[in-house]
Amino acid sequence: MLIRPAERRHAAAISAIIVPTIRRGETYSLDPSMSEADALAYWTASDKETFVAEDDGVVVGTYFIRPNQPGGGRHVCNCGYMTSAVAAGRGVARRMCEHSLAYARSRGYRAMQFNFVVSTNERAVRLWHSLGFETVGRLPQAFLHPTAGYVDALVMYQLL
Amino acid sequence: MLIRPAERRHAAAISAIIVPTIRRGETYSLDPSMSEADALAYWTASDKETFVAEDDGVVVGTYFIRPNQPGGGRHVCNCGYMTSAVAAGRGVARRMCEHSLAYARSRGYRAMQFNFVVSTNERAVRLWHSLGFETVGRLPQAFLHPTAGYVDALVMYQLL
Repeated sequence: MLIRPAERRHAAAISAIIVPTIRRGETYSLDPSMSEADALAYWTASDKETFVAEDDGVVVGTYFIRPNQPGGGRHVCNCGYMTSAVAAGRGVARRMCEHSLAYARSRGYRAMQFNFVVSTNERAVRLWHSLGFETVGRLPQAFLHPTAGYVDALVMYQLL
Repeated sequence: MLIRPAERRHAAAISAIIVPTIRRGETYSLDPSMSEADALAYWTASDKETFVAEDDGVVVGTYFIRPNQPGGGRHVCNCGYMTSAVAAGRGVARRMCEHSLAYARSRGYRAMQFNFVVSTNERAVRLWHSLGFETVGRLPQAFLHPTAGYVDALVMYQLL
């Protein structure tokens, strides 16, 4: 698996991963009906660095990294990761998160924060814990899940 | 004290409150060197509703309210409050927060979240606790305070 900075030519492949995830509305707090153009603009916004994970030349995942806050909080980064449905269960998210942690250290970030991990996304919660994140906050009923109703969201964090 | 929606004519009064607070860089994670125009654009952005608190016709405070997340998290609001230095200690922040809680309920929000309360801002932390907020998260060393160095930030929350 090769993880590298996204280029303009990856736009369609990135859209093919992020749009279905956003449409499902189960794991990210984004408008499920947002347009493909808006989704791509969000994922590759100017405050973010966006990467793709390629397997045999096929994009199987994508992630972004950005400062979580401006000003006095800009030494803490934030990331978002999405994996192609066809590549689920093959460790793509783990590889991308490991890459992002190494990249964050190389860029001088001192911590990584996930602001809003939907508590029903148990596989992700387990994965982030296994990669060194602690649950440092719990937001009661902060997410309206399409089938489970109001569920908690977690704030996860690790010093780098 | 009269709290009402900000209008274009309040721009200078709002700037006179928010710019010095941003410049100090002690309580908000915003770039202390941001321009006055950028500060005003941030405080009155299109995703926010902005209010002013007037005392005898003088603007002594301002706050905004917005959805803290889009999509499945949009029933949780987020607010920011700033008080004029000359009006400090007169309960302006308390009055604005009470106003925002009532306004949030009237708009159908189900919770209010503060994402990043600097832990050294003890007066604010006490005030938010007294108004029903719980500290639901602690972000280790997430804020670089201009004199205290790296300090924790708090996530505060209340169901409405």
